[in-house]
Order: sequence, then C-alpha cells, then structure tokens
Amino acid sequence: MPMNEHENFILQGDVAFNVDKDTLQTFRRSYVVCEDGKCSGVFPVLPEKYKDLPIIDHGSQLIIPGMTDLHMHAAQYPLRGIGMDKEQLDWLKSYTFEEEARYEDLELAKKAYESFAYNLRRSYTTRAVIYGTIHNDATIILMDELESTGLETYVGRINMDRNSVEALQEENAEVSLEGTKAWLSAIEGKYENTRAIITPRFIPACSDELMKGLGELARERGMRMQSQLSENLDEIRWVKQLVPDSTCYGNAYELFGTLGDESRPSVMAHCIYSSDEELEILKKHGAYIAHCADSNINMASGIAPIHKYMDLDLKIGLGTDVAAGTAVNMTQSILRTLQASKMYYRLVDDSVKPLTIENVFYLATMGGGEYFGKVGSFLPGYDFDAVVVDDSTIFSMRNLSVRERIERMCYNDTECVITGKFVKGKRIRR
Amino acid sequence: MPMNEHENFILQGDVAFNVDKDTLQTFRRSYVVCEDGKCSGVFPVLPEKYKDLPIIDHGSQLIIPGMTDLHMHAAQYPLRGIGMDKEQLDWLKSYTFEEEARYEDLELAKKAYESFAYNLRRSYTTRAVIYGTIHNDATIILMDELESTGLETYVGRINMDRNSVEALQEENAEVSLEGTKAWLSAIEGKYENTRAIITPRFIPACSDELMKGLGELARERGMRMQSQLSENLDEIRWVKQLVPDSTCYGNAYELFGTLGDESRPSVMAHCIYSSDEELEILKKHGAYIAHCADSNINMASGIAPIHKYMDLDLKIGLGTDVAAGTAVNMTQSILRTLQASKMYYRLVDDSVKPLTIENVFYLATMGGGEYFGKVGSFLPGYDFDAVVVDDSTIFSMRNLSVRERIERMCYNDTECVITGKFVKGKRIRR
Repeated sequence: MPMNEHENFILQGDVAFNVDKDTLQTFRRSYVVCEDGKCSGVFPVLPEKYKDLPIIDHGSQLIIPGMTDLHMHAAQYPLRGIGMDKEQLDWLKSYTFEEEARYEDLELAKKAYESFAYNLRRSYTTRAVIYGTIHNDATIILMDELESTGLETYVGRINMDRNSVEALQEENAEVSLEGTKAWLSAIEGKYENTRAIITPRFIPACSDELMKGLGELARERGMRMQSQLSENLDEIRWVKQLVPDSTCYGNAYELFGTLGDESRPSVMAHCIYSSDEELEILKKHGAYIAHCADSNINMASGIAPIHKYMDLDLKIGLGTDVAAGTAVNMTQSILRTLQASKMYYRLVDDSVKPLTIENVFYLATMGGGEYFGKVGSFLPGYDFDAVVVDDSTIFSMRNLSVRERIERMCYNDTECVITGKFVKGKRIRR
Repeated sequence: MPMNEHENFILQGDVAFNVDKDTLQTFRRSYVVCEDGKCSGVFPVLPEKYKDLPIIDHGSQLIIPGMTDLHMHAAQYPLRGIGMDKEQLDWLKSYTFEEEARYEDLELAKKAYESFAYNLRRSYTTRAVIYGTIHNDATIILMDELESTGLETYVGRINMDRNSVEALQEENAEVSLEGTKAWLSAIEGKYENTRAIITPRFIPACSDELMKGLGELARERGMRMQSQLSENLDEIRWVKQLVPDSTCYGNAYELFGTLGDESRPSVMAHCIYSSDEELEILKKHGAYIAHCADSNINMASGIAPIHKYMDLDLKIGLGTDVAAGTAVNMTQSILRTLQASKMYYRLVDDSVKPLTIENVFYLATMGGGEYFGKVGSFLPGYDFDAVVVDDSTIFSMRNLSVRERIERMCYNDTECVITGKFVKGKRIRR
C-alpha cells in the first residue's frame, strides 16, 4: 500500500466511534470517507457519489478516531517509572526538577525530544497539549520535533520563578515574562500544526506577579493557558497559604486572570479534590479538566470523581501526565480511568457509578478532542483523525462484537498493532 | 549463544533479588552461579573455584529471579478484557461459565491452551498455580502443554456441582469426586514439572458433600488445594447463607477440611475482606494468600490491605487471576499491587502505608515462590529460576541504579525484552 497522498479517500474496516458520552456506534466492514481532511461519514454500503475515491481496505481491522492527550510533560519522558514511591511535591523536588534542568543542554534535549516525538507519533494520540521546560531553545526543539510528526499539538514553555531548585528557576517574574515573549517571537509563523500555549507550571511555582503577567499576556495575544489544579492535599493547603485571598485553588487561578474563557479555554490538569465552587468556576470559564488517572494513582494523589463531573456537563478529557503517568499510550489512560472509577465507587462513594467503556472512550476521543474543534468522532464534519488497529493478534474463541473488541483493545493494547494513523486526513504512520 | 545444556554455568549481568520483604540486593556486572539446578550465590568477583564454568555474558542486562503466579484461570485466557464492566458473580454467569463450557471441545481446548502455555513460557513467570476447567480431558491437555514449556506448575481440574450454568455443572458430588479420581489416575506418573492440585471452584459452586469429599480426598492423597476466598461482598453474604454454621468464609473452608496444613498448604485467592478471625485461620493452616490486585480492581471487588497482611507475617504471593486480570505478565501484577496499595492508603486507611517496590518484588518472587520451596531468590541454595531482561530499549538520560531500573521495568515492562529464562537451571527461552 503506497503512502497515502490523496486528499480524498476511504478507509474500510470495522469501525467504532462515539456520538455522545454514552453511545459507541459500531459498524462491521464499513467505509469511513475522508474529503478535504474531514470525515464525510461512515457507510455500511458505499454511496454512489464516493465510488471513484480510492479505498484502503483494512479487512476486519479496527478503525477508530484518533485520541487526544490533554496533559503531558514531554521533558519527563525519560523519567518514566522512576521514583514512583514518592508523592507529588516530593517527587518534583527529588527527581523531576533536576531532570528538567538538563534541557539546558540542547544536544541532550534534541535526543530526548526525538525519542518522545517518535513514540507519540506511533501511539493512539493524534492531538496533545504538552508541557516543555523553562528553556526557550529546548522548547523550540520540542516544537520542531512535534511539527515533523504531523500531530496537532499545543506546546508550552514553562514559567516558574519560585519554590523550585536553583537549576530550574527563573530569576523573577520579569525575566520569566520576557523569556516567554522572546520564545513567542522566535516561533512566530514557524509552524502549521504546533501552537504555543501559556504554561505557568502551577501556583506554588509562580509568584503572584508572574501569574498576573501571564494572564495579561495571554489575554493580549488571544492565547490559551494550561496549568495544574487540586492534585494533592498538601499542595492545596499550600496554595491557600500562598494566595490567602482565594476561596479555593481554582479561584486563585481566577484571581490572576489565568483561566481564559470559552474562546480560549484553559486546560486544568487533575482536579481531584475540586469543590462544587471550584467546579462552578471551571464551568464558567469553559475550562477543560485533564483527568490523569494513571498519574493520580502512581503519586497516591487520589481519584477524581469523573462520573460526577461528567454528569455536571463539565468539559473533560484524559491526560497521560507522562512521567507521573508512565506511558504516552492513551489506552493505558482509558484503562486506568476505568479502574480508578471502579475504586472510587467501591471505596469512596457508591453513588458515583463506575464509568463504562463508552464513557471513557468518549473522554479519550470526543471529550479531549473538542479542545481542538470538531475532533474525536467520525460524525460528518469532524476532522479526519483516525487510527487503524490490528487486534487479530489476540487469540479468541468467540465471534466478538466490535464493541467487545474495543473494550479488549483498551485492556490489552500491548498485544494490538497500530497499522495506520491519520491526522486531518494526512497519513502520519502505517 | 547455543541453547544451554550445561548442568553448571554462570550468568553475568546486573543482578537484583530480594533477601527479605524489605531488602532488594543489587549487583552490577556480577556473576550468578548455577550448580545442579541451584543457585550457589551472586559474586561481584568470580571465586577461583568457579573459573572453569561456562559464562553466559548478558552485559548490562538485568538478571532477576523468576516470578511465581499463585492464581490464574488458564481457560479464561481467550476472554481477557471482555465484559469487564461487570462484577464478579455477574461476570461469571454472563461470560466465564459459558467460555469454560467450550473446553468440552478438545480441539478447541488444544488450541486455546497452546496459546496460553506459549505466552506463559514467554513471560516473567517460572512457577504458577492454575485452574483448568471441570473437564478431565481438557485439563490433561493443559497439563501436557505446560509440561512441554519447562515451567513448574500446579494444575487443578475444577469441581463445581451447583449454582453454575447447565453446560458447566457436574451432576452431583459423587460424579464430581469420581471424575476427579479418574483425572488423577489418568495422569499418575505422567509429568515431571506439572502437579495436580484439588480445586473446588469456590464454596458457592460446591455442595457441602462435594467440599467434604474433596477435603478427604486431598488428605488421603497428601494433595494440596486451591480455592477463592472473600473476593466480593455479595459472595461473602451468599456463603454465610450457604454455610450458616460458619463464623466467616474462611471458617467455612475450615469446616469442610479444605484448608490443608503446613505440609500441604492451600492457596486462597483474593482475601480482600478477610477479618482478623479469617486471617488467624489462614495462618493456622499455613495457607497462602494469592493477592490479585488487577482482577480485584477490574471486577470492582475492592482492595486487600496487603501491607497489613505482610506485617502479620501471613504467607502471601501475587496472582494475575487471568482473565479477570488481563495479562499473564507478572510485572503488571506488581504494578497493580503497588497502585492498589497507594489507593488503599489514600482512600481507605492511611495507617496502612503504600507498599514499596521492594515489598512487591518480594511478593512476586520470594513470597509466592516459597509455595514451591526455596524459590524466588539468588540466595545460595535456592532453585535456579532466573529471567534475563534487556531494558536498554527504554531511553534514559541518567545513570540509573539497578534498583531504579527494576522499578522502571515494573512500570514500563512492555518496553523491555526478555532475553533468557531458566527454571531449575534449565533454559526454557531466550
């Protein structure tokens, strides 16, 4: 099969995609039509008008929407699975800050980010929202690497001017803000698929002046912001001390003007312990919750009651949170989200029912995808982001439904093989 | 490197093994000496007396003890990752019993068990305690397949004469007991590495008469038993109804004489909700707890407080519990055990501290290994069960300690490659 260069083409196979948070539509041996980078729909019988388009026949392989990873730290990629006996604040000080400080070295940054981008390209992910480090040059290398993958991403150069280690702390708010502006100038007009996002690490690492300055900068330039919220109980207490006027952690971001609005929504990672008030604030600003179950378990942070948040119609997607989460693989996030919801139900509050595979597949595709527009479904008009998966590698004695195969893929993805991947109709791997 | 046929040889590499539940000993570029199927010790500098033994040099690859899987259902292997939205009793009735009933068909049994045995041989596991089905012939096929792998296993032909589905239920206790005796006759003297174990599925599936009969049979023949205990709250209530004289679920097994003793210890899977009384009973009988964290989370059963059980000096190993657990891969059990312990600490009882990587590596190697004798360490005199792992496939920017690499392997094992595996000094894969 030659590398696809068609603008318009058809993928044939066994298709599954969400149409809403409770409904996974499945089709056997059907046709997913791509025209001008958008999906024209899924058809069990090919309509006459498409009969001249080239068909890429994937037999009974699975064809699913690409997934969106709303939160990950590219620079921590080489640190996966190390120091996991520690909790968040301790892990940051013992391992993470030291690791990130190394990205001063551009040769090393190049090597590390090449590896990260290579593996992200090969994964289920087609869209991602990513932290870099405080280093302009290294973050530009990261953006160059990501641009070359064909993935669509937001990438942030981190701001932090307090409570870090010496090697990873900017002198003061002004230095941090000027650095950010210099980064934005350096990349202006440079990329097609890679966008800059303002990235205060989290409130404990950013002075009030820096937070306010970043809020203004984002507003002036119409930029989005990403940060982290209510991940750990010690962190939450600390933020209350650092911003005594705030009524909750979410309100602290609001006070600094860093929560954005519907037109430029923020991503707030974690939100494990968000109060009703905090959830209201997130809703008011149209902010996205990046649920990072794998990380939240590994760091013993806790479990966010995502089913409750979904019932409140909050905007939610999944984040791998590499490297507190250990894989760029979004099916691992799906699985850990399911498992976390079962534990929350069993151990904390049995009125919050476990999430279903439909719910979580939605979060991984449409839920996070919405941050990028009409992304994460094969409904007509959605961007043509697709992943083709060969699951015939898993031995079975049954005629499984497509829905059962989707569930099995999420539980046993390491035995599946990705055989194709498209972003906006462009093939980025086979 | 030719297939190893030596009785005595040396593995060279970076070595890690537990000496107790809190201590992982590590050695760089050292020598693990095998003589007559036993480990003679680990040496940073090779003692003169071993200088004529052949050395298999694995460079800086990891050399670790083989792992023991104390609980798995071979027949459910093809069912991994399917129907996971259900809880235990519902999953059994909706999926599992129907799947197991298919093993009446020996052609199918052969195909399924070949796949199971092939993948178990390729895994980190060198010892396992395994459920088959109620079918004599299919269970013998399973034992044949396992024998050919070189793994050391206990395999059970399941007994169940009530509360099943028609296709998977024996007529009555007598039929079940006679069937079991026929199975034992058919395999007498047949295997070197594969042993039979008496296997009442669990109390809800076995009448009082059957339970008593199996207890007697095991006693008469000096056989061990395996079963399942206190996995699910509904199940526990049900057992109280079924065996009204019992003071707890564990006591019900005791009343039927199916808990064995120090000389022929039982394996009891799960033990999530074991009371102090139940733990005392397990201790009295020298029974092993098979902790199945992955399964217990997938089925929303709950989390066993394993750190508490370890502090009580109970005998504990890990079980994958395929297919409620989804991989034969024991590193997945290690990871899920760590994660479960963190959630128990965070959500249930913060006086039960999270397990460390040392604790859980111990459970996966020495803890479960003890069920087979001196197994699961490289201390002198232990059976030479070893797995060699290439982890250079994971990109890193640091000089990692061997301990850090062990942790990373457990969190990211799918990126590691097993390059050698030995049971009692015999190579069973490369």
